[in-house]
Amino acid sequence: MEIVFDLYQDKIKDQTKIEVLGWVRSNRNNGKLGFLVINDGTCFDDLQVVYKKETISNFDEIASVRLSSAIKISGIFTLTPTAKQPFELQATAIEVLDLADENYPLQKKEHTHEYLREIAHLRAKTKTFNAVFRIRSSAAFAIHEYFNRQNFVYVNTPIITGNDAEGAGESFIVTVRDDNKYHEDFFGKKASLTVSGQLHAEGFAQAFRSVYTFGPTFRAENSNTTRHAAEFWMIEPEVAFSDLNDIMKLAQGMVKHVIKYLFDHNHSELSFLTANVDAELLTRLQNVYESEFAQTSYTTAIDLLLAAVKNGQQFINNDIFWGMDLQTEHERYLCEVINKKPTFLIDYPKDIKAFYMKINDDNKTVAACDLLVPGIGELVGGSQRENDYQKIVNRCLEMKIPTPDLQWYLDLRKYGYYKSSGFGLGFERLVMYVTGMTNIRDVIAFPRTPKNLLF
Amino acid sequence: MEIVFDLYQDKIKDQTKIEVLGWVRSNRNNGKLGFLVINDGTCFDDLQVVYKKETISNFDEIASVRLSSAIKISGIFTLTPTAKQPFELQATAIEVLDLADENYPLQKKEHTHEYLREIAHLRAKTKTFNAVFRIRSSAAFAIHEYFNRQNFVYVNTPIITGNDAEGAGESFIVTVRDDNKYHEDFFGKKASLTVSGQLHAEGFAQAFRSVYTFGPTFRAENSNTTRHAAEFWMIEPEVAFSDLNDIMKLAQGMVKHVIKYLFDHNHSELSFLTANVDAELLTRLQNVYESEFAQTSYTTAIDLLLAAVKNGQQFINNDIFWGMDLQTEHERYLCEVINKKPTFLIDYPKDIKAFYMKINDDNKTVAACDLLVPGIGELVGGSQRENDYQKIVNRCLEMKIPTPDLQWYLDLRKYGYYKSSGFGLGFERLVMYVTGMTNIRDVIAFPRTPKNLLF
Repeated sequence: MEIVFDLYQDKIKDQTKIEVLGWVRSNRNNGKLGFLVINDGTCFDDLQVVYKKETISNFDEIASVRLSSAIKISGIFTLTPTAKQPFELQATAIEVLDLADENYPLQKKEHTHEYLREIAHLRAKTKTFNAVFRIRSSAAFAIHEYFNRQNFVYVNTPIITGNDAEGAGESFIVTVRDDNKYHEDFFGKKASLTVSGQLHAEGFAQAFRSVYTFGPTFRAENSNTTRHAAEFWMIEPEVAFSDLNDIMKLAQGMVKHVIKYLFDHNHSELSFLTANVDAELLTRLQNVYESEFAQTSYTTAIDLLLAAVKNGQQFINNDIFWGMDLQTEHERYLCEVINKKPTFLIDYPKDIKAFYMKINDDNKTVAACDLLVPGIGELVGGSQRENDYQKIVNRCLEMKIPTPDLQWYLDLRKYGYYKSSGFGLGFERLVMYVTGMTNIRDVIAFPRTPKNLLF
Repeated sequence: MEIVFDLYQDKIKDQTKIEVLGWVRSNRNNGKLGFLVINDGTCFDDLQVVYKKETISNFDEIASVRLSSAIKISGIFTLTPTAKQPFELQATAIEVLDLADENYPLQKKEHTHEYLREIAHLRAKTKTFNAVFRIRSSAAFAIHEYFNRQNFVYVNTPIITGNDAEGAGESFIVTVRDDNKYHEDFFGKKASLTVSGQLHAEGFAQAFRSVYTFGPTFRAENSNTTRHAAEFWMIEPEVAFSDLNDIMKLAQGMVKHVIKYLFDHNHSELSFLTANVDAELLTRLQNVYESEFAQTSYTTAIDLLLAAVKNGQQFINNDIFWGMDLQTEHERYLCEVINKKPTFLIDYPKDIKAFYMKINDDNKTVAACDLLVPGIGELVGGSQRENDYQKIVNRCLEMKIPTPDLQWYLDLRKYGYYKSSGFGLGFERLVMYVTGMTNIRDVIAFPRTPKNLLF
């Protein structure tokens, strides 16, 4: 009987004879007695295997088995209540299925994250990246589950798009030609990679009320920071008949659902990352899970930042004024120092926000929200959408946004649009937040950044 | 109290006073008594609203409310056990939230699918497309649930890639330039859109044993058929330590899980499509759900096709020989006429399959499988992967596949690879299969095909 991923499920009785296939993570021996640490990929925790010269026939072969080799162990599953690990496998027979090369790059020593990026095809075999990508997978499922339970329809908005209203100058071109004759190109016009599925999602929200996207988006921004990648995944829910308050509740619920899911399913991974990557991780997630997110208007935030500067707070940019675009340092100060918890900043000046956001009655601000979280800054950006056809057309004119390609989108307002609100969550930002990893390159399987297209 | 999507959940008691927001789908009256059909987007089925001149103050306004307008109804939820619909709402007050334009394109008459493609931003408001996109969403969730329950790790393989080993000549180029100086381009080299996440998924399977991708893939094939799109979504599971038989079981289980999920969650939609689009739909899905899929070797299939031709069967291509690439007509004959159920065709000639497939002991065939389903043809293509480093390198040489960009992939074989198998499922093919829709453009929210980049 081959056993997979049941080892840690309390399903196996002491002294049961089992068979395990897995990869060698460490191997040491004293000539008579050996210990293998193996992992079969099905759970984060490893299995310790004890092998003895007196018990297995090929002790010398096993004693020299190299890291990452695939092996098969038959043995007795043995509870070890007094040892560090809860159980071990007493081998009765071990077979080498595939001996790894001796030049396996992940020998048992610490490697820098920078080095591991160069071997992204192997780094998930390390404990840290194994934990990160398990958590990424769980977070993705938790998000699907969250929306599914609330009856949202999942919509795959297009990746290749002819609109570039939002992403002017920052879009990748998609072509089959090596000249620029786009009218003779595959689509008969210039095509680019999407920067957001929101506009299309709004259309579907008019049919299904509550929809969400979860797919890749792209930015051709030539910025080499720890928080930007050319290719990343976004979650964009859109809810008809709803206003800004409704979607702030939705965003808060989503973040908490993800954290709860990870507590329930990835405790080993979170504990490992807390011990090895970010000592505050578990505490921070627990705090976020238990707190009611704060809400501060942009106007109040400016007053608070001005007061802070007056009282001696030094930002890199101390030139605080109403109408400015807040920087990450300001956002973090607001949620980390002032509110000490995740904070929705709402009602931004219309001039620093997108054309589709609903203008408030003051005619100066828009019904927008950014969710700022300690340690990261902006995690979510959302808004209530302008529902009035004439107002949104005027806004396009004011902001010099060409409307012909957007006509279908503007037309949605003509057919019972009433209200609609939604937000966008950068999935990698969320994964960084729930793993403690500080570089976006380390939460993406094969990251794409300027001048970097390995694998 | 506003009610959403609970109407059909048997949670509301007869004669309860409720409030509903929704869009008008039809509206008729005789001057004293009117009937509105409304839908609030949260479930497929509609709600009938009865309004009377003697009961509501604005009867004339409501009587002239146009299709797709957003309205709010207060009324008494009333069970109607003897009527066609199980309940109705007896309005006590109706408010028009947003009156739709009179030029709303979906007036109450039949529209062709071709016409509806031109208004893809609105077509999900029709019953047919509402059903299709609800089912698409459910099928996506069912797939995530299927793999999640079996402890698979979901991996987002890259969309932009530097490898084009598999997709030579059929890939879209991704660039920020309008010349072809790729060495000065964003990534410093030529980049293209992925045709498959398999190679990267294999890497992750070596760390997590069982992984799957679910993301968009691209083909720049200039073919205008009912089954091809330039952008479509694929599901690609990859399982280390597993062989061809294991992943055929996995594929069969996945198809059945999706069907079961739809039976449990989308009965209204499936019934509607059976009544209006494909009369065989429910029967076919029930049959597939109950049948054990057949297995036929390619060599046997050729013998069966030769015999069929000998007995008078006329294919468009009657030139049947061992080594040929089967066409859809042959595939459909095998599963529809001979086996009469979904059929795995296995052990194809190596020369018509990809370089990474494991060569069988006969040295002529590879451990590959295609799942052929009645009405569609190929739904799934999978294989056991060549695990021997030298054999796969030789195969690349034979097939003239350049190896430098693939070295990381080939190197996976050096570090305890042992076995690995996986398959790819075209998600839109599956959605066509479970909805009865016959054109891929009608199961994609905003389809991308040659010379077509609307929205």
